[in-house]
Amino acid sequence: MTRRLLLVGIGSGDPDQLTVEAVRALNEVDVFLVADKEAGAGRTGTGDLVALREEICRRHITGDGYRIIAVPDPPRDRAPMADGAYGGEVRDWHAARARAYARVLARETGPDETVGLLVWGDPGLYDSTIRVVERVRASGEVDLEYRVVPGISSVQVLAARHRLVLNRIGSPITVTTGRRLAADVASGADNLVVMLDGGLACADLPGDDWDVWWGANLGTGGEELVSGRLSEALEPIRAARARAREARGWVMDTYLLRRR
Amino acid sequence: MTRRLLLVGIGSGDPDQLTVEAVRALNEVDVFLVADKEAGAGRTGTGDLVALREEICRRHITGDGYRIIAVPDPPRDRAPMADGAYGGEVRDWHAARARAYARVLARETGPDETVGLLVWGDPGLYDSTIRVVERVRASGEVDLEYRVVPGISSVQVLAARHRLVLNRIGSPITVTTGRRLAADVASGADNLVVMLDGGLACADLPGDDWDVWWGANLGTGGEELVSGRLSEALEPIRAARARAREARGWVMDTYLLRRR
Ligand SMILES: C[S@@+](CC[C@H](N)C(=O)[O-])C[C@H]1O[C@@H](n2cnc3c(N)ncnc32)[C@H](O)[C@@H]1O
Ligand SMILES: C[S@@+](CC[C@H](N)C(=O)[O-])C[C@H]1O[C@@H](n2cnc3c(N)ncnc32)[C@H](O)[C@@H]1O
Repeated sequence: MTRRLLLVGIGSGDPDQLTVEAVRALNEVDVFLVADKEAGAGRTGTGDLVALREEICRRHITGDGYRIIAVPDPPRDRAPMADGAYGGEVRDWHAARARAYARVLARETGPDETVGLLVWGDPGLYDSTIRVVERVRASGEVDLEYRVVPGISSVQVLAARHRLVLNRIGSPITVTTGRRLAADVASGADNLVVMLDGGLACADLPGDDWDVWWGANLGTGGEELVSGRLSEALEPIRAARARAREARGWVMDTYLLRRR
Repeated sequence: MTRRLLLVGIGSGDPDQLTVEAVRALNEVDVFLVADKEAGAGRTGTGDLVALREEICRRHITGDGYRIIAVPDPPRDRAPMADGAYGGEVRDWHAARARAYARVLARETGPDETVGLLVWGDPGLYDSTIRVVERVRASGEVDLEYRVVPGISSVQVLAARHRLVLNRIGSPITVTTGRRLAADVASGADNLVVMLDGGLACADLPGDDWDVWWGANLGTGGEELVSGRLSEALEPIRAARARAREARGWVMDTYLLRRR
């Protein structure tokens, strides 16, 4: 009576960036679970992200032998939080989401069904799906085995579009968040990929000391790219961010920062 | 008279880990350039890597409307080098390889042909192909436009197999090499992905302070996985490394290290 779950990385916006393995996995799924905020309710622009996911399913799934269940998404406090509170707050939210998933899995899916979760980009990079599924398993409410299918992350699309090698020869890459950027630079990182940065944290660095390669809404129709010396790139980046948000109703961006 | 070049990330061993975009790109190629060391000559086990690449082409390319040209690979000093010499040595080798590519492009491909380069994993991660192509362009010997197609990197396969999120919640990831590991740990990194580490540099860290998730020959038939506290995992890792090498004639491994 063990349910089979597939966590499928679907890339960062371009339906052609799914792997052959991911396409095959999607076609094995009987039931997709989708967080309800993604189902169109809530924040502006999420409707467009849902449309992208639906396009991916339509494009790659043969036949219509699957159903979709929306799982109510626990409310998440989006107000800025003190750094100390951040981890705990996130963990509470994971726990609430895990309860919601366990309930739906137990009540609305059969033990012989294959359940699918679509994960934006790569499931191993700044995504909570694996942590939530581990909590569902730990809860004991439902028996689950699961497999993770890698996907092209936004960082790889950024690198491809700018034709970048993310590392300098033989040197490290620090992948971090906007919130952590200043601390990581202070401890010596000089080649950083920044994600989850709604506030362009790089604007606080000395702009003449850094080069930046930036991209927003990568892989989607409204992709934006800017690169150059940070001091000169900030204004074009702000303009491009506004354009991206205007075009699709949402903006997600990531960038490589390298000390000159 | 601008030649069109496609740099195609082909994943890390599993032919199903190519993206739909990569499969399409392969099918647009008239001429594949392949480094001669990969063509079977030279080190033990590389014949198996060539076979993997050929399997990928066979599996995904419709028809046989393409040819393959082996490009002589400049000799590379494989003796251990002082850290200072490393960058320069690599750059000399890039320059020599760029000359070899430029020569072959100019003499053996037509200006209206699409040329393909297969790149292991993702072209943006510890790979020299982009740097070599930039040198070919800079040389002025042949006009080139090129596009990079992302691929699933070995790091993503590692994460998927261990069902890992590479970052701790809200925290950074340092992607580094065996050669740099000690220095990066000394400057405070406590969550690291290590690549290009033939000598298991992690064995020099205090093994009770770290957890490790290790994988070799990921995506191939002879995949090996080990995880646990570093002090207890080292011996199983050494045994698994030997098995992997035994099975295929080569071993490539990567791992996540996390301070407990
Ligand atoms: C919650 S993380 C998920 C990352 C995802 N798992 C991946 O592999 O790309 C969301 C962050 O990823 C980045 N991101 C995701 N999609 C993007 C896109 N299409 N273009 C640019 N950045 C993107 C942004 O930095 C965003 O804040
Ligand atoms: C020159 S780098 C190329 C990395 C590649 N571009 C990628 O995206 O994975 C070679 C290193 O990648 C890692 N690697 C490549 N393929 C691998 C595999 N199938 N299994 C484990 N590690 C692999 C190893 O750390 C190896 O030393």
